[in-house]
Amino acid sequence: MGLAPAAHVLYSQMRFNPKNPEWLNRDRFVLSNGHACALLYSLLHLFGYDFSLDDLRNFRQLNSKTPGHPEFELPGVEVTTGPLGQGICNAIGMAMAQAHIAARFNKPNFEISNNYTYCIFGDGCMMEGVASEAMSLAGHLKLNKLIAFYDDNHISIDGNTNCAFTEDVTQRLEAYGWNVIWVKDGNNDIEGVAKAIEQAKKVTDKPTCIRLTTTIGYGSLNEGTHGVHGSPLKPADIKQLKEKWGFNPDESFVVPQEVHDLYQKTIDSGIAAEQEWNALFSKYAVQYPEEAAELSRRISGEFPANWTSKLPVYTPADAAVASRKLSEIVIESVHDTLPELIGGSADLTGSNLTRWKEAIDFQPPSTGLGTYAGRYIRYGVREHGMGAIMNGISAYGAFKTYGGTFLNFVSYASGALRLSALSGHPVIWVATHDSIGLGEDGPTHQPIETLAHFRALPNCMVWRPADGNETSAAYKQALESKHTPSVIALSRQNLPQLEGSSIAKASRGGYTLVEKADADIILISTGSEVSLAVEASKFLEETKGIKAGVVSLPDFHTFDQQSHDYRLSVLPDGVPILSIEVMSTSGWAKYSHQQFGLDRFGASGPAPKVYDFFEFNKEGVASRAEKTVAFYKGKHVSSPLNKAF
Amino acid sequence: MGLAPAAHVLYSQMRFNPKNPEWLNRDRFVLSNGHACALLYSLLHLFGYDFSLDDLRNFRQLNSKTPGHPEFELPGVEVTTGPLGQGICNAIGMAMAQAHIAARFNKPNFEISNNYTYCIFGDGCMMEGVASEAMSLAGHLKLNKLIAFYDDNHISIDGNTNCAFTEDVTQRLEAYGWNVIWVKDGNNDIEGVAKAIEQAKKVTDKPTCIRLTTTIGYGSLNEGTHGVHGSPLKPADIKQLKEKWGFNPDESFVVPQEVHDLYQKTIDSGIAAEQEWNALFSKYAVQYPEEAAELSRRISGEFPANWTSKLPVYTPADAAVASRKLSEIVIESVHDTLPELIGGSADLTGSNLTRWKEAIDFQPPSTGLGTYAGRYIRYGVREHGMGAIMNGISAYGAFKTYGGTFLNFVSYASGALRLSALSGHPVIWVATHDSIGLGEDGPTHQPIETLAHFRALPNCMVWRPADGNETSAAYKQALESKHTPSVIALSRQNLPQLEGSSIAKASRGGYTLVEKADADIILISTGSEVSLAVEASKFLEETKGIKAGVVSLPDFHTFDQQSHDYRLSVLPDGVPILSIEVMSTSGWAKYSHQQFGLDRFGASGPAPKVYDFFEFNKEGVASRAEKTVAFYKGKHVSSPLNKAF
Ligand SMILES: [Ca+2]
Ligand SMILES: [Ca+2]
Repeated sequence: MGLAPAAHVLYSQMRFNPKNPEWLNRDRFVLSNGHACALLYSLLHLFGYDFSLDDLRNFRQLNSKTPGHPEFELPGVEVTTGPLGQGICNAIGMAMAQAHIAARFNKPNFEISNNYTYCIFGDGCMMEGVASEAMSLAGHLKLNKLIAFYDDNHISIDGNTNCAFTEDVTQRLEAYGWNVIWVKDGNNDIEGVAKAIEQAKKVTDKPTCIRLTTTIGYGSLNEGTHGVHGSPLKPADIKQLKEKWGFNPDESFVVPQEVHDLYQKTIDSGIAAEQEWNALFSKYAVQYPEEAAELSRRISGEFPANWTSKLPVYTPADAAVASRKLSEIVIESVHDTLPELIGGSADLTGSNLTRWKEAIDFQPPSTGLGTYAGRYIRYGVREHGMGAIMNGISAYGAFKTYGGTFLNFVSYASGALRLSALSGHPVIWVATHDSIGLGEDGPTHQPIETLAHFRALPNCMVWRPADGNETSAAYKQALESKHTPSVIALSRQNLPQLEGSSIAKASRGGYTLVEKADADIILISTGSEVSLAVEASKFLEETKGIKAGVVSLPDFHTFDQQSHDYRLSVLPDGVPILSIEVMSTSGWAKYSHQQFGLDRFGASGPAPKVYDFFEFNKEGVASRAEKTVAFYKGKHVSSPLNKAF
Repeated sequence: MGLAPAAHVLYSQMRFNPKNPEWLNRDRFVLSNGHACALLYSLLHLFGYDFSLDDLRNFRQLNSKTPGHPEFELPGVEVTTGPLGQGICNAIGMAMAQAHIAARFNKPNFEISNNYTYCIFGDGCMMEGVASEAMSLAGHLKLNKLIAFYDDNHISIDGNTNCAFTEDVTQRLEAYGWNVIWVKDGNNDIEGVAKAIEQAKKVTDKPTCIRLTTTIGYGSLNEGTHGVHGSPLKPADIKQLKEKWGFNPDESFVVPQEVHDLYQKTIDSGIAAEQEWNALFSKYAVQYPEEAAELSRRISGEFPANWTSKLPVYTPADAAVASRKLSEIVIESVHDTLPELIGGSADLTGSNLTRWKEAIDFQPPSTGLGTYAGRYIRYGVREHGMGAIMNGISAYGAFKTYGGTFLNFVSYASGALRLSALSGHPVIWVATHDSIGLGEDGPTHQPIETLAHFRALPNCMVWRPADGNETSAAYKQALESKHTPSVIALSRQNLPQLEGSSIAKASRGGYTLVEKADADIILISTGSEVSLAVEASKFLEETKGIKAGVVSLPDFHTFDQQSHDYRLSVLPDGVPILSIEVMSTSGWAKYSHQQFGLDRFGASGPAPKVYDFFEFNKEGVASRAEKTVAFYKGKHVSSPLNKAF
């Protein structure tokens, strides 16, 4: 309740049409301290969004429209929040998206994009490292259409913040390059809040934080204590509170007509603003038909027809290339056709190979290093911030976005990736250096558990392409995805172009690469180990007379969505299946009877020596295949796909 | 090379005995920018640690003592670093450990503990959120014996930091409550560095950061460019460099005698310091025998005999209790017996139940909220920082440490947990609210992939106890662990005390809870679903005549270490096994033929309704068990433990 007055001032001056919550140029609002969602739901109800009083009454009930934290799918809820620190980063992503749209599409007399992004965050968000990362970047990027409110209520669940959080927040934000305005009595100083917003809008080269010193549960008998942080007020407290504010204490969920009338003004002006914008855009379409067509297409989420013709295709005659490099070739090939593609990397551009040659950096023009129309984002060493910002860019609309880092450090961004999957933001992680094949950097950098982790995340594609065609397939699926994020795991080392791979086949998530009639065994594998499986298959036939088919399974999630018949044709009954992947075997029993992996940490050394050390070579695979064949000899072998339910 | 002069000044005045790198009161040094490890290995060689010139020559070779990043196991390497941001947090943990040891054991004329903790970190560390979290806490905690060097070289892999990192670092650190000293010519101003260290030691209420403005690759032909960041210098460059510094350009890995002599002084004075300390400690043992005995025991890592008698034991007659509460009861029971236990929580004390009643907070006395002798740490909302700090406390020695948060937010700390496992820091995560059973907070807070992730991490225990005895077993194993971290997943909701559970049985990681002769099926489960499996077993027998044994598997890692015979007695041939766990099924095929789980995100609502919605009730389990029995009827069923290799 300490926040309610400021939130009302904020919403009253915002520009949005509750009847069309997806209007591109609406002002955005993000509640980063998502546990305060009752406030947000009330605002959405009052400001005309599709939230009824019944919805409010069903607060936190199963399948209600008012869950315990705001969820992206709900009208007027811009992003799912709750995990602290994420929302402010999402807001920063949205402000970056807006800055880019404005720089790309605005023309003299046609201010197509000028919306503000607002956010409320609390002490909890400010303590989270992810917010630190993104807020530092926001200052660097001079995102002046970002206005955030810091709910300075001195309370977190552990009680007074003085037990753990005594930093000078204003000074810290100023160090990041933010403009900070302090409203000392956030509980009551309505006019101060309004003025602060006005002032913030006048600043042209910095994001603004309005620090609102408030009292949590203001007006409650327990105001200012953490007792009101997550717990409902007692009936007697609610009664005195209603009396204090002049409401009928015997009524609940009643909104007086005069209140509705007041809010209707904001709604009406929002509706009018959208109509004006539509009219402006119609004129714009006459004068700038190309730009208008591009923006309309991007808003629709549809790619240009035949864009997939840009995807590189390979034959076995082509040279062996590292899949991180194959990824770079895809980005280089498609970036012109897909102007909605905006991406970057958490500092490792030269290693992740995420930047096309002629890319312009996304930078404030004053830096001399780029412009806001630039499409390459220098995130700095900020993986988690990058992940959360990508969610914000994606939620803004009209973008496809990717970010690069080493696969192992996508884990730093677990919190953001989880929200991509939960909310259905189809962002793309370009995750290079995907195994012990990175060599000398050693076990601190060599993923073991990483793919198992991401594969266990619902609604997440985890691609590990084996060659050029599979890399093109991974990008095809990841780019066309509407509601599922992707992690694309890419090698540092060169991989040969495989006989039998194709974009179409790999796009099904898994397929038979080497077909063997009457196979004794099937080797199933991903990424850099697929060519090893092919080698081992030849070696087995030549030296042992064992016939080993090879299946490539670049993405579990996509494969799982194929028909049972198709999947059973790839992993049939009657043949033992051995998985080969140079990391944790966890999760592989779903597709195989026996697993060869690395259930320990890696080692520092030249990559080929490290592979040999762990026996990931044709002899090592062959000896395990032999044992598997012997073990299953004479036994009835059922496909792992056959299940009781 | 920009850092080398300062590093030499620093090491020359440090107090350590290279022949006994484990001396408790040694000064610690952490290289947070671990990719600069060539510098660290050289220092360790020069200052008498067990690093030969041959070791240096084998830099980044397989199984060498000089891997691509510093590893904890190596003499003189205090912590494994490389993943950016972690090392500075580890250093903060070490400084906290030192402050506690000093407050607990120092007596008039007996300064048993007074070591400094030094750290070098770079721009990359400063950009990482994890560092932000811990540095803010370090300022709050006024850790004056922490002296960190910020290598302000303006370069990261993406080139000049001005493309992404333009914040005012000095101002930010001052906002956190740090003392900042700027040495503007870090390349050359040896005296300035020495003076800065002296000054830092005089500050009594703040950690100090010495900002060293340096040139990366100073002296190289490419000095000041990111070309020297991770790549070796070219031979011609090395030659001119050696000539510039007065070395013979034709010699490599040669250290002149006069250099050795110089360093010998530091070594000698370190050896003398340890001898003095040993003498002091002998006198201390006479005057303060209890304290001396405690500290000696703690250094040895052995617990008091019979400490396990403090672990609570339950019978089925005892009340149903949430396992987070059972965890609190363990902490309450053992904290007196185990004074090395120091723990805290990332803000959620009242929800995680991590604090014993009479605990004193670990705080600077000036706050009036506790003392450095306090053993309860208020981490604030900083999960990742907490994880990395715990690693530092553990690496310091003489502590067992735990930290609490919701299970779902342990994922925020993936980077730190991975290093716990890799380095073998036996820290404990008290991870409450471990499933959809947390109810109303909804899918943003309900773990799905989390256990699969941690179980795929090598060398990590992931306990999910089902009742009181199993909670005691989890703590027994986690506390006694010397080289393996633990995540203990605990419920928000009440769990009944099970017939057939015991500390001894659960300590094996998995055991038969309900034995059925001629079982038709075995239900295998963890945590809150074990009692559900027991219920379903009764229901199956009563309504369908199906005999279902029940296995509880509280920790995969510990179970895997039991003998094959034991494991096969729990998961025998001939019986289909159905796993029941209300989260991702990934990884369960290792112990079961069929899986019932939740391979989607959860839902917001009262917990019992959410369980019913996903059919996690006795009817839902029973119907799946029935299908499983039918599916395997007449088939040969082999234990999932039987493997070809
Ligand atoms: Ca929405
Ligand atoms: Ca060591």
